[in-house]
Amino acid sequence: MGNSIYEVRRRAVLALARSQVRVDALLVSRGADVGYLSGFSGDDSLLLVGVGLACLITDGRFAEQAAAECPDLEVIVRSGPMSTAVAGVARGHKIRRLGVQGGHMTLAAQAALGAAVGARCRLLAVGEVVLGLRAVKDAEEVRSIRRAIGIAQRAFRGLIAGGAKALSGRTEREVAAELDYRMIRGGADSPAFDTVVAAGAHSSLPHYRPGRARIRPGQAVLLDWGAWAGGYSSDLTRVVFIGRIPPELAEVYEVVLAASQAGLAAVRAGVSAKAVDRAARAIIERAGLGERFIHSLGHGLGRGRGNAEVHEPPGIGRLSAARLRAGMVVTIEPGVYLPGVGGIRIEDDVLVTAGAAVKLSTLPAAASAMVLR
Amino acid sequence: MGNSIYEVRRRAVLALARSQVRVDALLVSRGADVGYLSGFSGDDSLLLVGVGLACLITDGRFAEQAAAECPDLEVIVRSGPMSTAVAGVARGHKIRRLGVQGGHMTLAAQAALGAAVGARCRLLAVGEVVLGLRAVKDAEEVRSIRRAIGIAQRAFRGLIAGGAKALSGRTEREVAAELDYRMIRGGADSPAFDTVVAAGAHSSLPHYRPGRARIRPGQAVLLDWGAWAGGYSSDLTRVVFIGRIPPELAEVYEVVLAASQAGLAAVRAGVSAKAVDRAARAIIERAGLGERFIHSLGHGLGRGRGNAEVHEPPGIGRLSAARLRAGMVVTIEPGVYLPGVGGIRIEDDVLVTAGAAVKLSTLPAAASAMVLR
Repeated sequence: MGNSIYEVRRRAVLALARSQVRVDALLVSRGADVGYLSGFSGDDSLLLVGVGLACLITDGRFAEQAAAECPDLEVIVRSGPMSTAVAGVARGHKIRRLGVQGGHMTLAAQAALGAAVGARCRLLAVGEVVLGLRAVKDAEEVRSIRRAIGIAQRAFRGLIAGGAKALSGRTEREVAAELDYRMIRGGADSPAFDTVVAAGAHSSLPHYRPGRARIRPGQAVLLDWGAWAGGYSSDLTRVVFIGRIPPELAEVYEVVLAASQAGLAAVRAGVSAKAVDRAARAIIERAGLGERFIHSLGHGLGRGRGNAEVHEPPGIGRLSAARLRAGMVVTIEPGVYLPGVGGIRIEDDVLVTAGAAVKLSTLPAAASAMVLR
Repeated sequence: MGNSIYEVRRRAVLALARSQVRVDALLVSRGADVGYLSGFSGDDSLLLVGVGLACLITDGRFAEQAAAECPDLEVIVRSGPMSTAVAGVARGHKIRRLGVQGGHMTLAAQAALGAAVGARCRLLAVGEVVLGLRAVKDAEEVRSIRRAIGIAQRAFRGLIAGGAKALSGRTEREVAAELDYRMIRGGADSPAFDTVVAAGAHSSLPHYRPGRARIRPGQAVLLDWGAWAGGYSSDLTRVVFIGRIPPELAEVYEVVLAASQAGLAAVRAGVSAKAVDRAARAIIERAGLGERFIHSLGHGLGRGRGNAEVHEPPGIGRLSAARLRAGMVVTIEPGVYLPGVGGIRIEDDVLVTAGAAVKLSTLPAAASAMVLR
């Protein structure tokens, strides 16, 4: 068991943490990070990683599950406060310098833990070393993401197979719920984040929440959805047209599609994330729509789930400092939003390699393929 | 607009913060808190509250929405980092002592903000004053919770109306997905958290995630679900029996039901949360099952959504320090879990008043009503 993938990851994370700040051990508190480093799939549990130390601190609700999922870990089932339990392990292992996840631990959690460990143990904030390690996927992880993409794509294809009448006359929310239901029946554990279905002018709000508006013939409908399956997420966006392409969006669509292609073509190991953003953004700026592209081009994709965590490093935007590395999986999602009119966004998921990017999502993107009759 | 409910809440929160620590203004970062104090329903935005200051800092994705939802707020659409934008407002309003949410702000966010505001402005962690205010609901909020409960109950009734064959032979995940779909068709904006459907021995894991196991005749199936609608959550649990009550769970069910009734009867303004937990727990302990009740009796319920946030103050457990106040809405959810056999949990939502608690959920709980034929 000592050479499990989790053990290898824990060693790497500890080394990365120690390259930032001298610590005896690292306390991992972000749920997705705990799972990545232990195989544990429950919540509300912390992982303490040190040399010869891998200890999961959980509570009674997860005791059975932790024992089954993490046979190579020391599992502590706390009954008192989490901070007391962590302090007990720190004392037992003579930890004097304990790293904590600065990007996840709150000020209140730090205060409680600091009081519990006392003066003999210092808490030291460590940067996002686990997210950094997570950014580069191994073959098994890429397979999981492919599977999550496949589930999302089949759900979308199933939805639009009914043609215009599968959407027209229904509310945005009903369509979103059907897409979610299809993903789960197709093998997802849950949607990866809140599914967006935005009809007509609503699509100019990039994070619109589907509402009671009924979809009408002639409208553009933006769908942004993904599946979470086996611990990994997919994230896709398409705009479909009910019967015809609204004339005021036809040209915008072609601009966004060209930007998507330019972005995808720019993805390659060694390239700066900023340069990828620029490649796509330049197309939109050249069309005079630069001010209508109001977000970053893309983001890393992996274990993160939910609106807040599905966006992982590397960010691909104007201000990004990251450089792409082989094994990263990122979204490329240029968008143009015309307030009161509508928005177009096209989002695909790609694997970075030393050569041309491998597009993992395979839905067509041509406007003609998106017209539902 | 100056006397909107949001304005009243902002004044109260500022006063509460100042009763803890001297601050010129409070930076509100938790999304549900931002919405509670502003009416804004988007994400990734912060609210700065001071005397004569109510400023929402958002980004281009939410600019249109913020203007529409928060007409009485100053809205700043940032293009650079959040910390820079906050620092700009702090400078403009001569804020020297800025409160931050200690229970939400991370160490990394504090470090970035501290660097941006510089030496002339101190950051001071404030306790959970917004959650404290949120714990007591006004009439409009209670109506919203009632509506979220009604949606969840109708979805459950619709699901089990089909009798045993509505569940038997289907996977846990399919049943969970159908319950979610029914809630959304019934008016929910989303499920309030990940729906639990746990069949047979799986129900002994209180936070089991529904899987590919097929539900079989003779099994007990635990369902824990809720709707999120109009910004408020419901949270319910029932155990249904496919055809018959498994003999090994019959007595346990009656113990949990009696504990539920004792807990509900103990809820009243002025009573300590600990005493309510004790009233229910005593029944389970008397039956010799105290060690199988491995979690708290209940928790506050309101705007929180998602597995991590649906549990709000007050916690109702053995270690709780809270005292119940009129207007609080809490869950009462005793449970007994027998590893390898199964678990029983019954969860209802109640409103605390000066007199007897008002049970907001109205599903039957008697074992006989839970047998599907």
